[in-house]
This record gives sequence, C-alpha cells and structure tokens, in this order.
Amino acid sequence: MSRLDATHDPARTSWVESANGHPQFPIQNLPLGIFSPPGGAPRPGVAIGDLILDLRAMAPLLSEVVAPALDSSTLNALFSLPSQARRDLRRAVSDMLSAEDRRAVIEPALHPAGDCVLRLPAAIGDYTDFYVGIHHATNVGRLFRPDNPLLPNYKWVPIGYHGRASSVRPSGEPVRRPIGQRKAPDSDVPTVGPTQRLDHELELGIWIGVGNPLGEPIAIADAGEHFVGLSLLNDWSARDFQAWEYQPLGPFLAKNFHTTVSPWVVTAEALTPFRIPQPSRPDGDPAPLDYLFDAADQAGGAFAIELEVLLTSQAMRAAGHAPIRLSAGPASNMYWTVAQILAHHTSNGCNLQPGDLLGTGTISGPESGARGSLLEITDGGAKPVALPTGEVRRFLEDGDELALVGVARLGEAVPIGFGACVARILPARG
Amino acid sequence: MSRLDATHDPARTSWVESANGHPQFPIQNLPLGIFSPPGGAPRPGVAIGDLILDLRAMAPLLSEVVAPALDSSTLNALFSLPSQARRDLRRAVSDMLSAEDRRAVIEPALHPAGDCVLRLPAAIGDYTDFYVGIHHATNVGRLFRPDNPLLPNYKWVPIGYHGRASSVRPSGEPVRRPIGQRKAPDSDVPTVGPTQRLDHELELGIWIGVGNPLGEPIAIADAGEHFVGLSLLNDWSARDFQAWEYQPLGPFLAKNFHTTVSPWVVTAEALTPFRIPQPSRPDGDPAPLDYLFDAADQAGGAFAIELEVLLTSQAMRAAGHAPIRLSAGPASNMYWTVAQILAHHTSNGCNLQPGDLLGTGTISGPESGARGSLLEITDGGAKPVALPTGEVRRFLEDGDELALVGVARLGEAVPIGFGACVARILPARG
Repeated sequence: MSRLDATHDPARTSWVESANGHPQFPIQNLPLGIFSPPGGAPRPGVAIGDLILDLRAMAPLLSEVVAPALDSSTLNALFSLPSQARRDLRRAVSDMLSAEDRRAVIEPALHPAGDCVLRLPAAIGDYTDFYVGIHHATNVGRLFRPDNPLLPNYKWVPIGYHGRASSVRPSGEPVRRPIGQRKAPDSDVPTVGPTQRLDHELELGIWIGVGNPLGEPIAIADAGEHFVGLSLLNDWSARDFQAWEYQPLGPFLAKNFHTTVSPWVVTAEALTPFRIPQPSRPDGDPAPLDYLFDAADQAGGAFAIELEVLLTSQAMRAAGHAPIRLSAGPASNMYWTVAQILAHHTSNGCNLQPGDLLGTGTISGPESGARGSLLEITDGGAKPVALPTGEVRRFLEDGDELALVGVARLGEAVPIGFGACVARILPARG
Repeated sequence: MSRLDATHDPARTSWVESANGHPQFPIQNLPLGIFSPPGGAPRPGVAIGDLILDLRAMAPLLSEVVAPALDSSTLNALFSLPSQARRDLRRAVSDMLSAEDRRAVIEPALHPAGDCVLRLPAAIGDYTDFYVGIHHATNVGRLFRPDNPLLPNYKWVPIGYHGRASSVRPSGEPVRRPIGQRKAPDSDVPTVGPTQRLDHELELGIWIGVGNPLGEPIAIADAGEHFVGLSLLNDWSARDFQAWEYQPLGPFLAKNFHTTVSPWVVTAEALTPFRIPQPSRPDGDPAPLDYLFDAADQAGGAFAIELEVLLTSQAMRAAGHAPIRLSAGPASNMYWTVAQILAHHTSNGCNLQPGDLLGTGTISGPESGARGSLLEITDGGAKPVALPTGEVRRFLEDGDELALVGVARLGEAVPIGFGACVARILPARG
C-alpha cells in the first residue's frame, strides 16, 4: 500500500479557488476521468474543484512514461502502466495545481466542469459483479430462500458472476425500463411486459490497472498493484425478471440492461488516508483461506467511505421537494476486501485487463436505514416508502431519479467525494 | 434468410486444387478469420482448401464498402457492416477463386495454412453462454438436482449467463488446469487445489455482426441481419469448483479460466444450404412466447451440422493410437434457435456489439453416445470411459487432448467443415 505524502497534506491548497473546501474534489482528491470540453474530443482529465484539468494538454509537462498514455479517448493505456507512474502523475498534478507560480501555464488547460461532458473512464473489457455485502446477501437471500438465506459457500468464497460490459453507462444517461418475462407466484405461465419491480443496487465499482497473463493468478499481497481506484456503481435490477430467470445460471436480463457508474475514478492513491482495518469476522466465521489472507490487507484493506442513496420522483421535483434519503451506511459492510476480490477472481488463472470493472455487490448495513436496494428497504414490496408528495414507492416508477453519493472521510484527512452517480427512469419502449 | 446463389453451386470448383473435395474448406465454405502469414502481422483471411487467402491484399479488388474494413487485425469492422456487404464479399471471393483467368492476380495472396498462425477472429466485447441443449440441461440437472432436473423456466426462457471474454482463446492454445476451491460432499470445509473434475463442453459459438443500440431490442424476424456465423466452442469447466460456487449467482471460476473457439467463422451465408426446420416441440411443451416466435425461423432456423468430440491421452499418442470418439450427434438438439437466442438476449434492451460471441450451451443428444460433456458421459464420474491403453477417464487428465469436430451436411449441398477446435491440458501451475 502506498504511504501518505505531500499530496495528502490537509494543509495543501490550490490556486483553483473552488477546490479549497470543495466537498468532492479538493486538491487531495484529483480523480481521473475522460471528458469532452465544449466542441472537443474526449480526453483524459482530472477534477479539481468546479473545474477539469485537461491532462492531454499537460502531457508536455509530464513524464515520458505517462505522456503517451494521455493521447487517448480512454484511460486504458494509463491504467496499464505500473502504479508508480500514476503516483508520479498525482504528485505532478498536485504540484501544478498548488504552486501559484505554475498558474499561468496551467490555467488555459482548465475547463468549467459544467461545460464538459463526462464519459466512461475506460473501454471496459469485462465487467464482473461480486456479492460481498453480507447484510445484503442475507436480506435478499431471505426473500428468495426464506429457510436458507446465506448459502454455505458465502463465508468461504467471494461470490461473483460476470455481468455485461456493453451496457455500463456514465452518470446522467437515463435508464429505459426493460421489458421481459416475469411469472406471478400464483400463475403457471409467465407474461411479457415492462418490469414491475425495478430496483437500484448501491455498489462500489473497482477499476483494474495492470492485468495478469492468462493462467497466472494475482497473489493477494500483489493486488494493490492491479487496483487503480473506485467509482460509485448502480447495478439496476428487474427483480421480477430475476426471480424467474436466475436458476440455475444466475441473473442475466434482470441486470444487463443498464449499469450506471460515476465517471470519476477516485484513485487508490487518493484513498490511502481512508484505509481502515477489515472489520473482524464474527465468532464462528471461518478464517479466510490462505490465498485470501494477507495480514496487511486485514490491517488496512477496507475503506472509510460513507454511502448514501437519494430519490426524487417527478412529482417531488415539480413541487420543489428535496430528495429523500433511502439509505445511508459505511462501505465497511463488505465481507471481503478489494484485494480478496482480485485474488479470488484470478485464483484460477482468469486474466484481468486494464480497464476491467468489478462491482462489489450491494453494500447494505445491518440496520434498517442502511439497506442498499428497494428490495430490502420495502421487504420485497411489502412495506412501501412514503414520499413527501403523498406518493409511495415499492419499486422505482417512471420519472424517478436515483442518486448514489459517496464521501471518504476519516480523522484529520480532507474528505473527498466521488461525484455524481445519477440516473432517471424512462418509461418502457412503446 | 439469404437464398442460395452461385456461391453454393455444388458444381462450382476452384483453381486451388486442394479445395476441391476438401472436407473442411471447399469453395462453398469460404470461412472468415484472422491469420498471420510467416513474419507478417495479423490480417483478415479466407480459408480455401489447404491455403489461406489474404483478404487485405485483395482489398483493391473489392468494394469500397468492404475494403476499409479489411485494414485491421480483427474482423470487428467487417462484422459491423450490413450483411449485404459480406454477401457481396463472398460472391467476389468465390468468383476470384473459381475463375481461372483471375489466378495470376490472386495466387500471390495465398499462403499455405500450415505456415500461418490463426488468431481470434474478433476482439470480443462480451461473451454470453446459453444453455439451449435440452438433453444436456436435463442430464446435468439430474446430477445437481436429482428431484428437479429441468427447472420450470427452461421451456419459456432461453437461459443464458455472461461469461468471460478475456479468456477466450483460439484452437491450439493449451489449457492450464485451474486451481480453486472445492468441497467434498462429506466435508464441512472446502480445500484449495487443482480441479479434479476438469471437463469439456461441446458448443457452437455464435458471432454477432451489426449491433443494436442500448434500449432497442432485436426483433426475432430481424435476427438474421445481426448473425455473422458460427464456430465450434469448448466451454472448459471445473465441475468441482462449479458445484461449490454456483449458488446463487451461477458459474464463475468454474468456467472463466479458458474457452476455446475454432478460429474460422463459418458464415451465415455459407450455412444457408444447411438450414432445416426447428424440431417440433414435444406435446405438452409451451409454444414460444410471441417475441420468440417467427414462422420463418421455425421453418428454417436450425442447422444440419454433425458434431463430434475426440480424445487422445498422452499415452495414446505415444503408442500411436487414433483418437477415441467421446460423442457424436447433431446440432439440431438445440431447444432454441440462434434467432430466438438473439431476440431473447436483446429483449430487455441489452445491446450487442459487432464481434460479441455467444455460446449455445452444451449440445447433447438424448442417446448415450451423444453426450457433449464428460460429466454426462461418465454420469458424474461414476462410469469411467476406457481408453485403448488401458487407462480410464472420469474427467480430463494432464496431457489429454480434446478435439471438437463439426461438419455441415445436407442433401446435395457440398459439406463444409469448421476446422480445428483442439487444445491440450497442461498441469496446474506449480
């Protein structure tokens, strides 16, 4: 794990005024992304306060290792570099944006974020979704299998499955309500129509850096070298499709119609001050198997990130209501760490590639206010949520807008945010 | 569906002598692939007899639509064109290779196949595996769930799940035996080690052409426009990992360590003479739902392809034994057609992209000689297969070589083959 350095110094400020005290993007954050400035092509950038720094324009000022990777419309080339290259980039950008004497050179490469379009940070080769939120697994397991909520493999295996890379979209792109097969419990035959149980899932997205060759696992102690950073991720789910289709091969059309990510990659380096010990396993839980155990990972493999889910309905927005909070809780409700996830995924030799995306799975807490999906919040639709307009929600309705929020916060470190992970529900195709 | 034309004429011969009577690649086939000639970079090519035609070298002789797509190390650009462009390409290549007066111009662009390296035909964006072999689903379901072999959704839903695109490899690349978690039925805890139940799965691979935008399903009647062609596909599986990990989200590390495809894409156009009616559903089975029903597809959506699986052990090869046949059967043992698979996959708006790969799932027949995996052949390991060396096989051993064979054969049409889909098992990583 990398150590703290001057880029993390809480006293460091930027000559970009809006960065100082910025709730998301102070100079201690410097997340990586792909943006298009007005009239310009997509290119790598860094968020700083209310502005975006054009990294491609900065290439002549950066190292020979990093510069060629910036001449691209994706971050895949940058992600494919050794992590040292990104640490060097971070230090260079932090220095540029803090030292007043560089201002005249740098300032022309800054664009107001509000004028820019954010893209997916990488061309995603493969997208894998895990299931490491143990409270989510228990809550959902109870609905699908009342007698058997948490399966015997859960505490041994970081359960995951492959998802759809092609339908991952950045924050802001609306979600079309999918049409599909669902079967009512009291019916013998399925019907086809728009999902009646459209749900969100609050997750973190894990971005992969350097890949591993096919057949060569990543040892857990080396996982940090392959981990670029995190985004927020909303794994939209059609619960009625899922219940009908998921056996025996897992979720498919219930999940692959759309996945939303926040387009800024909050880097592993920026997250260093927010590393915390992996919470102890409850008495009676098995110890991680050797390939999933690393003392340093147990000591600092979790993250102090506060997560929140906000909802507005169309009627709420029309009436000027503020969003309601559906849930709030810490990311430390993950049963497995990022390093354990990477070690497991590659333990059989499966090859990861730069720009691959892994979802953590829904992160719910044990308490009722910390449930990361409506399926859990409403107990499968039985206990609707009241909105300030008098409306109720069992599942998402057309026009609803869902926002995931994430802030890393710990001790004296300057808090850093993840930016927007928002999407609105469009009616099903007519 | 495209009609027969001069390219299918059984009387058509080529001035490439080895093509005439060739069991795989007569002039009626003309499969598309990516190959590297000796010392050369990967490029598009067409198999003809024992030779490969360099399509990039032929670009100046081809249409302005097709030519730019040939300047690539993958077929994705060619696959992204309307199917009419590939029909035109097929006619042009067939004419080049049949008309003796073109020989002097064409011949310098031919390379002996034995001197070339075959690559994956496309950069695979997403790989999805289906489960349309109903006899396989029944056989395997019986082993995993004796009381409940075929789940209630099977005859309504073309069951599929997302697989791993990064670990798909062309024929010839060896398969490293994976290491992973498996739990013996009589044990409370899992152990970690090389799989003891390594298996093959006989499948067809479906290559996608023109994609669909996110949110816009492909109607079943339009599916042909999006279907480029077929390969053979071996979905290597670690049955012990699978049994332990697959609930509730489906197979993961049991499958994603390696998938082998035959590198030649036998095109939809070449397969036209081998179209047959989809076999009638047995009495009592539900009719396909509207979005999965198309009269033309029912009348001609299946393929007359004969499939076969051959095995040699290291000791067999050392003793000069011929391969033994593990199974043989027709591809018509698919409960769902290619068009039904495409319509279902996109019915929720999921977007397919040019170069995506779909596996059919294991194709087994009802009879004991037509089982497409060792899990079925040996009844979960209970009934070993005898080899001519006196060895037995419950599952695959290190040094074993598995070959899938496919030949399309029907009536007066000249049979066409799929080429090699072979791989050898390497010992687990030390």
